[in-house]
Amino acid sequence: MNVVIIGAGNLATNLSFALRNAGFNIVQVYSRTYQSAELLANKLSASFTNNIKEIEPHADLYIASLSDDSLLDIIQQVNFSPSLLVHTSGSLPMDLLKKYAKDYGVIYPLQTFTKNKISDFKTIPICIEANNKDTEKKLIEISNKISTQIHLFNSDQRSKIHLAAVFACNFTNHMYTIAEEILQKENVSLDILKPLLKETLSNALISSPLKAQTGPAMRNDIKIMTKHKEMLTYNPLFEKIYSFVSESIYKNKLGK
Amino acid sequence: MNVVIIGAGNLATNLSFALRNAGFNIVQVYSRTYQSAELLANKLSASFTNNIKEIEPHADLYIASLSDDSLLDIIQQVNFSPSLLVHTSGSLPMDLLKKYAKDYGVIYPLQTFTKNKISDFKTIPICIEANNKDTEKKLIEISNKISTQIHLFNSDQRSKIHLAAVFACNFTNHMYTIAEEILQKENVSLDILKPLLKETLSNALISSPLKAQTGPAMRNDIKIMTKHKEMLTYNPLFEKIYSFVSESIYKNKLGK
Repeated sequence: MNVVIIGAGNLATNLSFALRNAGFNIVQVYSRTYQSAELLANKLSASFTNNIKEIEPHADLYIASLSDDSLLDIIQQVNFSPSLLVHTSGSLPMDLLKKYAKDYGVIYPLQTFTKNKISDFKTIPICIEANNKDTEKKLIEISNKISTQIHLFNSDQRSKIHLAAVFACNFTNHMYTIAEEILQKENVSLDILKPLLKETLSNALISSPLKAQTGPAMRNDIKIMTKHKEMLTYNPLFEKIYSFVSESIYKNKLGK
Repeated sequence: MNVVIIGAGNLATNLSFALRNAGFNIVQVYSRTYQSAELLANKLSASFTNNIKEIEPHADLYIASLSDDSLLDIIQQVNFSPSLLVHTSGSLPMDLLKKYAKDYGVIYPLQTFTKNKISDFKTIPICIEANNKDTEKKLIEISNKISTQIHLFNSDQRSKIHLAAVFACNFTNHMYTIAEEILQKENVSLDILKPLLKETLSNALISSPLKAQTGPAMRNDIKIMTKHKEMLTYNPLFEKIYSFVSESIYKNKLGK
């Protein structure tokens, strides 16, 4: 199966390696940035271009892995109708592709990627959506070759899953960042929290995060929370985050 | 070394098991709740009481592992001067114990504990503070028998570390809870986020959370963030948390 990768970002890079390793033939990489297209294409022994008009018209699958903002800009410049076109966005609806191909859909891998570290796709959940049953079957077959975790979701469900992922991944990471900043002021390394971070995740996965909740907010320990907020006055946003997350923890406990 | 444990909560339970397994003799457990004292004492082959006046006066070490609110209430009822008295709180200052013992200090294990799962202390960082060098030496010797990660911090530093731990553990867990709630509305299990949660922690620990930050807020992708906030209108607190954490992520990126 011949595949064209439109995009050369974190997700495009990881997905194209997974496909190549599963036996797919990546024939071409497009990126607006010449160097990015070249870098990824060379690793995949593919051709490359930064001119959307030069995209190879006879491939079997076109994967548009672009930022949500630029997806339409780029896809509408393609000067032929791709045989099978998918995007990889959690939040964009599938129907965005309707005007640009007969068969289209979404392959959304639920993971955070960086170019520096190529992920093993086997256990990564892949959320699929397609515009008809035949296309759905095709996308399942393709995804099954790179992962064992295939899920079918519509665009609305996928956008909810993406929102959940923002809390679970992006916002969790920011809690780590705030913790690191507080420690840095005392010249203490984040390393000291490693066992706690691991145990927090482990406990949440073993039982459930709701049951695993502990801390001052859970006990409604006003005295400590007041002291903590005083310690955060140097950063009003951190103080607000402390207040609202604490309030939310306590309300959730009460089931409100 | 004979030890009396004052308290029978999550931390008291885990710490007393670690000490017992390291060869310490837990002679007595006190808890206001008779059943809690009995339950823990039986597991440790120790005596127990729910009457603070009945605490064994000749032990070598007294560990007060109580909620911050009740610590002083209980300690001031002890009708003798303990040979060596420590508390286990991250946020309470050491000097709270000054009036109640000649030698005193703090043993603060930086971990989240539950009674249902006895933790291996070996890699748990233990933060120590003591009122004099001899006591400090003693607390280091004791802690060295249960963990390889001993740190000396004063009360002010310890309270900052505790605040960092609230973000890294309690608040992170609440991000997981919100994610689970969003998924539950779609009848999707939190399991689908497991690989993402693991990777998020792994990336933050390998580089740093600041460098590992991704997501719509990091890209300042206003379109998605507006859509996400609309999806959260059913819970104004979640919406506020979304707004302030996103704002804080972007400000941090800009170094403000």
